[in-house]
Amino acid sequence: MSDKNINNSPFNTLKNIVEKDLSHVNELLFSMAKSHDAQLVDKISSHILSAGGKRIRPILCLVFARLFNQECMDQIYLAAAIECIHTATLLHDDVIDESETRRGLKTANNIWGDKASILVGDFLFSQAFKLMVNTGSIKALEILATASAIISESEVMQLDQIGNIDMDLDSYNKLINSKTAELFAAASSTGAMSAGANEDLVSDSRDYGRALGMCFQIVDDVLDYTGKQESFGKEIGNDFFEGKVTAPLIFAIKNASIEDKEKIKSLFVNRHQNGAFEKVKELIIKNKGVEDSLRFAQEYADSGLKILENFPNNQIRNGLKGLFLQIILRNN
Amino acid sequence: MSDKNINNSPFNTLKNIVEKDLSHVNELLFSMAKSHDAQLVDKISSHILSAGGKRIRPILCLVFARLFNQECMDQIYLAAAIECIHTATLLHDDVIDESETRRGLKTANNIWGDKASILVGDFLFSQAFKLMVNTGSIKALEILATASAIISESEVMQLDQIGNIDMDLDSYNKLINSKTAELFAAASSTGAMSAGANEDLVSDSRDYGRALGMCFQIVDDVLDYTGKQESFGKEIGNDFFEGKVTAPLIFAIKNASIEDKEKIKSLFVNRHQNGAFEKVKELIIKNKGVEDSLRFAQEYADSGLKILENFPNNQIRNGLKGLFLQIILRNN
Repeated sequence: MSDKNINNSPFNTLKNIVEKDLSHVNELLFSMAKSHDAQLVDKISSHILSAGGKRIRPILCLVFARLFNQECMDQIYLAAAIECIHTATLLHDDVIDESETRRGLKTANNIWGDKASILVGDFLFSQAFKLMVNTGSIKALEILATASAIISESEVMQLDQIGNIDMDLDSYNKLINSKTAELFAAASSTGAMSAGANEDLVSDSRDYGRALGMCFQIVDDVLDYTGKQESFGKEIGNDFFEGKVTAPLIFAIKNASIEDKEKIKSLFVNRHQNGAFEKVKELIIKNKGVEDSLRFAQEYADSGLKILENFPNNQIRNGLKGLFLQIILRNN
Repeated sequence: MSDKNINNSPFNTLKNIVEKDLSHVNELLFSMAKSHDAQLVDKISSHILSAGGKRIRPILCLVFARLFNQECMDQIYLAAAIECIHTATLLHDDVIDESETRRGLKTANNIWGDKASILVGDFLFSQAFKLMVNTGSIKALEILATASAIISESEVMQLDQIGNIDMDLDSYNKLINSKTAELFAAASSTGAMSAGANEDLVSDSRDYGRALGMCFQIVDDVLDYTGKQESFGKEIGNDFFEGKVTAPLIFAIKNASIEDKEKIKSLFVNRHQNGAFEKVKELIIKNKGVEDSLRFAQEYADSGLKILENFPNNQIRNGLKGLFLQIILRNN
């Protein structure tokens, strides 16, 4: 998943609000990624952290902490821990998907091999839990350990579903909820929790994060068909070539005539043949696979926007509101 | 590392003392390894947990909890968490080492592939932290997160040292301390801690566990040359064929004449040639590689035995004492 295109306001507005905290998070991340004994750990950790994306998850955690309280410190550790978990996941994902580039750079597995990538992923994952320990919050640890378990489980589900053109919307929904939205939800809710927000607001924060994560992933999956490589930050068509069935394909198949359905399925089965991607993309657009996916993403945006009404009306709430529009407009 | 040969007293005496707790740990392990959404998670987790070894780490945790207090419950969660971490490590180790069998069974990566093994390892690792959360002990979480990070770091070190015939005893010591002894130390100290032992006794428990882990690993590395496959539980010569330099090779090279040294190094470089293993084994024995390794293991045993004097004099202490002899006698 690429965070690359989110570089205008309102994301930047939110980022600026927590800029100081975020620079602490970055310092902490690089210091936690260091190893006295194994230089290769340093190299791989620095590589993946520098390539680093937009830090949307830690920013979400910091922003929710700030929304409810200016004075707490635990969110720095939590935000760093969340990014550590995400980074560990990326290292392992790239091994699983046999990816060669990420955000325009060679992947760690491409440079240093699968074995080192697996182990450094494990290292960063452990470091994430060490970071959480600093908060002294068993509740936050529980949320993040649970999120991690759900993410790995979903990756196994995804592996199991590879090449399954009959995957339905429910399964897709469940998959991206676990794979992506769970960590967005955990980032938002632990941020709110670290600031001492009450249970209802923590629960609302979690729901907002989940809606944002769902919206983000659906649009990301659309961009895997319609995006431009230079702005999307990864190669286009990856999901298709890897045999991953996502929203655009599911909606297109649902809407298509029997004839088009057969064409799409045949292109999917023979996806490595020349021109298969361009042809399937045409059929997806023709059968409203993109349109319906974006409508589906909009439903999550609407539910997220509704939740925001429960929050204090300030600059942060405005930023969180604008974030949905920004994500959906990534498509243009 | 195989735990298979430790199946006589005193290990069994200790195991019997904590039998009831251990059966709770096993139940907990199998229930934590279940997944509602991904059947492959169930299959792989059950496979590796059933193949399961002797549970030496969780038993150590339970025994130390029992040594200081009969009534606490947290050690069940801790012992299960420790075995979960160990199991996750085994899944990833088998991918890294491209192992085909473990304890006489096909490895998970051999049956279900590397990708699923990596992901289920990640899942079990997260489940370990969920188990720890039940204890509410931030201190125990810190110890186990730190141990996990050290283990992954050491695996990267090991990867980096593959094929390095010039590795010295200090590096080897550091490596097995991190790779093996750290989790033995964590198991013993968190067990003692969960029973409310005072700081000195927790520290002694950690030192005992570390000494036991070092002794265990050195003997394991000796058995990789001198063991019999049926009783050792894994294939003999694995370390040699994988280019891992361990105690027997380090001591043999240290003791050897210039001529023998060259022979050993040349056999190591050409280790996949027919008969290389048998020849290097002969040179190791001739140059006291086995003898000195066992003497080295005995030094750790002696330090562990000394620590035991600080503990209450009872059946458990006797068992912990006998454990060293039992480990060293595995060689015969």
